[in-house]
Amino acid sequence: MAGKAKRSNVVLRPHFKTHQSREIGQWFRNEGIHKATVSSVSMAMQFADAGWEDITIAFPVNLLEIDEINKLASSIKLQLLVESEETVRFLSRHLHHQVGFFIKIDVGTHRTGVDPKNFDLINAILRSAKEGKKLTFKGFLAHAGHSYSCRHHEDIIKVYDETTAVLNPLKAHYIQDYPDLIISYGDTPTCSVVDDLSAVDEVRAGNFVYYDLMQLQISSCTLEQIAVAVACPVVAIHPQRNEVVIYGGAVHFSKDRIELDNIGVIYGQPVYTESYSWGTSIEGAYLTRISQEHGILTIPTEKIKNIHVGDIIPILPIHSCLTANLLEDQQVV
Amino acid sequence: MAGKAKRSNVVLRPHFKTHQSREIGQWFRNEGIHKATVSSVSMAMQFADAGWEDITIAFPVNLLEIDEINKLASSIKLQLLVESEETVRFLSRHLHHQVGFFIKIDVGTHRTGVDPKNFDLINAILRSAKEGKKLTFKGFLAHAGHSYSCRHHEDIIKVYDETTAVLNPLKAHYIQDYPDLIISYGDTPTCSVVDDLSAVDEVRAGNFVYYDLMQLQISSCTLEQIAVAVACPVVAIHPQRNEVVIYGGAVHFSKDRIELDNIGVIYGQPVYTESYSWGTSIEGAYLTRISQEHGILTIPTEKIKNIHVGDIIPILPIHSCLTANLLEDQQVV
Repeated sequence: MAGKAKRSNVVLRPHFKTHQSREIGQWFRNEGIHKATVSSVSMAMQFADAGWEDITIAFPVNLLEIDEINKLASSIKLQLLVESEETVRFLSRHLHHQVGFFIKIDVGTHRTGVDPKNFDLINAILRSAKEGKKLTFKGFLAHAGHSYSCRHHEDIIKVYDETTAVLNPLKAHYIQDYPDLIISYGDTPTCSVVDDLSAVDEVRAGNFVYYDLMQLQISSCTLEQIAVAVACPVVAIHPQRNEVVIYGGAVHFSKDRIELDNIGVIYGQPVYTESYSWGTSIEGAYLTRISQEHGILTIPTEKIKNIHVGDIIPILPIHSCLTANLLEDQQVV
Repeated sequence: MAGKAKRSNVVLRPHFKTHQSREIGQWFRNEGIHKATVSSVSMAMQFADAGWEDITIAFPVNLLEIDEINKLASSIKLQLLVESEETVRFLSRHLHHQVGFFIKIDVGTHRTGVDPKNFDLINAILRSAKEGKKLTFKGFLAHAGHSYSCRHHEDIIKVYDETTAVLNPLKAHYIQDYPDLIISYGDTPTCSVVDDLSAVDEVRAGNFVYYDLMQLQISSCTLEQIAVAVACPVVAIHPQRNEVVIYGGAVHFSKDRIELDNIGVIYGQPVYTESYSWGTSIEGAYLTRISQEHGILTIPTEKIKNIHVGDIIPILPIHSCLTANLLEDQQVV
């Protein structure tokens, strides 16, 4: 991803909500990357503490954390996300330091953001920010979250093309008044599949550091590219119903799920152990049910014979961000 | 629940996985309860540390935690769950102290446990335990998890009746050889709805301390009995699509969901704030989508007018256990 960003002449500001790890943050630094994205004030504080000095909190500002935001802004280059005049006015009154801000643009996901055609609102936000004197406009930020419903490369590329076709006219419209404004663009599926990202100025993908089964279903990655597994102990075996019970449930994986044709809903996929790491997937085997701590693997008869209580089975997660958030710590292999 | 257990002449050994809180554990102690259930070795260590001296880990033993189990067993009265000879043999070889054990019985949930008709396996487990000399048989333990698919009191009572009809013959069969054996019985729906629990010896319900929307759907509780809410800040408002964006997502609620008739899938339900607590539900309003940190509330037009960025909206969770596990801390109001 670092190489692709370089070739495309765009800034890579990776999203650290996926790994939330100092150690893995350091991998990015080793690639010459010194800008990070996070999704909460507490995550920003964690990485500021780890020496990251330029952080964007890519989540609409939580006004109730203004004290922590002020503390952060006193020590690092901080960018916030706004999408209303109310938020700008509040920040203008309460910020102690100069802070950068992006206007979040809704590029079709309809989760957050300003309609890109709503120039009245964009102008009002910019005017309020100018009056308040505490906020510096950095540009337009978007996350094409609807790429998550894609299943083929061509659909993902279409999302990228449509999104940049919305964002670039905005840039053209405001560039004279704000010559430094940039387009900051997110989401792992498009950043993984599109070869040339030069239609934007900055990319904020993050999940690609691990990938997961959801990204595999989207076609953002291959099974071999999934770089995280949860090491789950076997606690019970029920060969009569082709089931293995693991210590691995919703408190480890969260409850994200995908539906596979001819298989149904799954919560993860078991793979073979291989020295201190893992290898290929166990064919026909899936994590088919989870409760708070229990996971139920459905495993074909000929494979279940080799499994014993006390074994460890690595499980590829559906959503690596939520899994990493729950497990908090990881061992690099 | 303490009163009902007393009237039924059964032991209440509440499951602490719901709250995982020392403070709330103390509430039980104030009711004269000194036995606890947990679902992991680490939770047992946490409550042993808080002064709980009689703990059952109601999860099939994870052999890989034998060192921690030995440490626990050196300081408290510990009961484990087994369902295989392999586990009994391993424990017999590796335990340093005398430990109690229950045989987990599958009463129809088909998640874990021994088939109650499999006397060969039950006898083999008891024989291995006797030979090993480290494990003391405490009785049969069951969790009627299939009560979670009930929606009416009569169905829940039926689950209780069917389950106890399976467990009591087992007790009758083994009571001569093991005069102290007990039937330990779980699950919040049946323990909430059944008036007289005297068909068993011990109940391990836990969720009732908070309840949640899933229990409401099951009919285990009323809306007014739900005793936990997540205080979520409003970060953006989209009146044109009747949506409010809150800082409250899968990292706070997990991703448990229920499906309501005429509404669809929901992830929580907003309620009005009321001084330092909360009041009735906001009619027609639901937490309809969540991603990692974002929650999207769908709120009727006339209600959305009174909501502002920076407000706090309390949200009743679908599954209080997973929510409490994620938020780790709570404020008692």
